[in-house]
Amino acid sequence: MGALELRHPGGTTEIRVGPGLLGDPPEPVVRRLAGRTVFLLSTPRVRELWGEAPGPLVAGARRVVELSAEDGEGAKSLATAGRLWEEMIAAGGKRDSRLVAFGGGSLNDLGGFVAGCFLRGIEVVQVPTTLLAQVDAAIGGKTAIDLPGAKNSVGLFHHPGAVLADVSLLETLPPGELRSGLVEAIKMASLLDLDLLERIEADLGAILAADPEVLAPVVEGAARAKVRVVEADPGEAGWRRVLNFGHTLGHAIETALGYRELRHGEAVAYGMLFAARLAVARGGDRELAERLRRLLGRLELPELPVLDPPALLSLMGRDKKASEKGLVWVLPAGPGRPELTRDVDPGLVARELAGFLRDPWG
Amino acid sequence: MGALELRHPGGTTEIRVGPGLLGDPPEPVVRRLAGRTVFLLSTPRVRELWGEAPGPLVAGARRVVELSAEDGEGAKSLATAGRLWEEMIAAGGKRDSRLVAFGGGSLNDLGGFVAGCFLRGIEVVQVPTTLLAQVDAAIGGKTAIDLPGAKNSVGLFHHPGAVLADVSLLETLPPGELRSGLVEAIKMASLLDLDLLERIEADLGAILAADPEVLAPVVEGAARAKVRVVEADPGEAGWRRVLNFGHTLGHAIETALGYRELRHGEAVAYGMLFAARLAVARGGDRELAERLRRLLGRLELPELPVLDPPALLSLMGRDKKASEKGLVWVLPAGPGRPELTRDVDPGLVARELAGFLRDPWG
Repeated sequence: MGALELRHPGGTTEIRVGPGLLGDPPEPVVRRLAGRTVFLLSTPRVRELWGEAPGPLVAGARRVVELSAEDGEGAKSLATAGRLWEEMIAAGGKRDSRLVAFGGGSLNDLGGFVAGCFLRGIEVVQVPTTLLAQVDAAIGGKTAIDLPGAKNSVGLFHHPGAVLADVSLLETLPPGELRSGLVEAIKMASLLDLDLLERIEADLGAILAADPEVLAPVVEGAARAKVRVVEADPGEAGWRRVLNFGHTLGHAIETALGYRELRHGEAVAYGMLFAARLAVARGGDRELAERLRRLLGRLELPELPVLDPPALLSLMGRDKKASEKGLVWVLPAGPGRPELTRDVDPGLVARELAGFLRDPWG
Repeated sequence: MGALELRHPGGTTEIRVGPGLLGDPPEPVVRRLAGRTVFLLSTPRVRELWGEAPGPLVAGARRVVELSAEDGEGAKSLATAGRLWEEMIAAGGKRDSRLVAFGGGSLNDLGGFVAGCFLRGIEVVQVPTTLLAQVDAAIGGKTAIDLPGAKNSVGLFHHPGAVLADVSLLETLPPGELRSGLVEAIKMASLLDLDLLERIEADLGAILAADPEVLAPVVEGAARAKVRVVEADPGEAGWRRVLNFGHTLGHAIETALGYRELRHGEAVAYGMLFAARLAVARGGDRELAERLRRLLGRLELPELPVLDPPALLSLMGRDKKASEKGLVWVLPAGPGRPELTRDVDPGLVARELAGFLRDPWG
């Protein structure tokens, strides 16, 4: 079992990774909930699959108040947040109450936001149930809900007290969800941890079969890479944007498709291919672009739908991470060598994008 | 003109206090807005009285986008926050945009919350237009909106980049509003700065006449006292609760009255009288209780309406600042000697409350 710590301006997040964690939860995490009112937020699907699993974790709570949000991104609405806050007030929630967010990345985002704003912030324990959330969404304190047409546009930084990544939960994950989460691990590995990249290349078959013993070190490695980046730049003032590799085009693709057809990680995979291509077009070396093409190719991603280049260019300009000074691109100068730059010729982006959309794998 | 700094975990707030500040705004604050998209949030009443006043402050902005919320506490709703966020997204707001919250305490609370959650936090400049907001609400990073029946129950800590307290704006303030704000200054003075308390006792007439030259040092003194407390305990883990003096019963009175009949500061004044009485009943010295009775008596507060003791006791137990371990009382052991304690016999509170409601000034 892996144990990591993330030190942030407000304290420390304990992160545990391993198979069977919920059945035998770490004592320090159980103690965080002991004697408290614990709001256990989940979704219908997660409760159906794993409803009894958090039992040992919350066994010491003074009382457990169950909260529910819908499955998927639809839960991340102001209306849902408002309803949950009203339920928490009605149940007598206090500043020393706790919230456990038990679900996938959308639920972790929502739960973090709801906890972060309730009575100006109560502690949240993140229990991510998808690979995407275990390697990325649940770690680092980003929380958010969506406005119509503007994903993640309302939120705050609110670091969890603890993150429990029980890789055994991934056994019930649909293969497409596993693949989508793995893309985020590949993203971090390719720029930040080449040993992890080699491990993923070597163990891909067992990873996609959700073998918990093989998944555990991959989740732990990706979590460790993310922790290092977040510790260096908790407020995303600079270096943390390295985690945005593949997301500039990826977000634009998701928005253009109305968040249908491709999963988040699938769109990010295409975004990574494009960023790598752009780096090569600016004179970077070809090795990472080729390794990514090979590795992502083995994931058997859904095909990239037909998309309109001007629409994507316009959506990228409106990206949440854009500033008034323009977009910051994360381009790989080579394996393990991320480059953050505003200095990318828009004409080059437009030309490369047209070629990319015709043949993303070329 | 007074210049203070508040150092908090995320940086520093520049606080300026003085007459005519908006007409001749400090250069460092103007620079914070220069070249940016500036969202200027205000209310119909403030725009009518002082619509042109922020002109020099935002003169260097790339563009100014006006936003409006209703006057008073009603603005602090999730619906209003949601509408403002949608307007900000539609106007192309970015992470390096700024929000200027130009209005009274409710608007400062709302504006801080809206800025704090927009794209996970943009910088807010607070320009408080009431005495209450200048000495208290605009300083210290507390932001909030209300849920039905639960004031300030949703919010976050989001410190402003700067606070401009232009005491000339107080000339148009209704006398009741001035009195209500002065109560918060008396609250801080009586526990934290006895020189300021003496100044208020000596200058009360000119203060209530809104003389800017007399108001400026009072606002600056109260702001300085608040800054010291917030710097020592930014997250309100302990010592910052000293600012809650008078608010335990005060909040309960406001809730019981449905936020009608008494203004916030008026209810807090009664809360301070009660806390001082409770301290005396526990063996504390009588000096501060008597000084408060004399000074608050000179404010000619509206009479305390008839209230039901058990209802107030129950409301105090549900206070937002209560924890599962119970209420923390702020009791004055004497002038300048605050005591924070959970150790107050509920039977004593009930008995003293009954006597107090019969004769608050006795």
